[in-house]
Amino acid sequence: MINSNLREKKIRLLLTLLGFLFIGIAAVKAQVNSNYKNQKMTSFTDKGNAAPAANFTGTVWVNMNVKPEEGYNINAGTVTFEPKARTNWHKHSSGQLLFVIEGIGYYQEKGKPIQLIQKGDVVKIPKNTEHWHGASNDSMMRHIAIVPEYDKDKTEWLQPVSDEEYNTY
Amino acid sequence: MINSNLREKKIRLLLTLLGFLFIGIAAVKAQVNSNYKNQKMTSFTDKGNAAPAANFTGTVWVNMNVKPEEGYNINAGTVTFEPKARTNWHKHSSGQLLFVIEGIGYYQEKGKPIQLIQKGDVVKIPKNTEHWHGASNDSMMRHIAIVPEYDKDKTEWLQPVSDEEYNTY
Repeated sequence: MINSNLREKKIRLLLTLLGFLFIGIAAVKAQVNSNYKNQKMTSFTDKGNAAPAANFTGTVWVNMNVKPEEGYNINAGTVTFEPKARTNWHKHSSGQLLFVIEGIGYYQEKGKPIQLIQKGDVVKIPKNTEHWHGASNDSMMRHIAIVPEYDKDKTEWLQPVSDEEYNTY
Repeated sequence: MINSNLREKKIRLLLTLLGFLFIGIAAVKAQVNSNYKNQKMTSFTDKGNAAPAANFTGTVWVNMNVKPEEGYNINAGTVTFEPKARTNWHKHSSGQLLFVIEGIGYYQEKGKPIQLIQKGDVVKIPKNTEHWHGASNDSMMRHIAIVPEYDKDKTEWLQPVSDEEYNTY
């Protein structure tokens, strides 16, 4: 009788522990799923960090969305220009694509007039073409900038866009 | 006298014609510049055309922003899903990048729970990974979808996402 009671108690204890274990596993799994479901992704509408002063005029912010080392062979970032801010003249051997997501800005290819760009515009910058982009005189501008075929690209930064050049719009 | 008068008249006529010519050239040039400045670019916020029914469930629109033949070796398009609409299960050998520009949607990789995606999210879909994306139950969703390294990509379309699968969120 004593032995049988002991065995029964041990079995009950084991079943209770197993029960707790299952409840624990389910709770952890639910937590992981819930975290996964609601995990904060990189937001491309955040302005990010100050852009390197050497290649820009005025206040410019860069938020890297997709880095070359992530294996997609593109470089994608959100660039935010405060009014009057702009890139230097520059060119990309792989070209570049701009998706304007906010505001009003300017785009110019060397030898052509400045072109107004605004939310919704897709700017297709040809390969090896000297150009600049930035905000307009009195509005900020934000775009996603994509350099495709990043492994082959060579981006060459040139002189700043002078006020005289900027004011030709 | 008669000869000299005639010569004078001819010169005057020539100068007048030259004047008109210069005015004409200037007017055409101004018009060209003005058209160039204000030319309508492709807008990636337009919904575009109905998506091929075979690869989607519900009402879906596709607006091709950057086509492979434009020389950037990427394929970029805006896809607009009405509530409950979604892609079939599919995979890309080059992977895919989604920039959610409007609304609330779902993204799921095979074997993982559905993840909520919303405006500002950058979804980085790994290469050769079975997945689907679409609108959420009661909101539309619009994203830019980019397939990088398009010359190497193979996209494989699979079975529709069943209501049972869709309703697991």
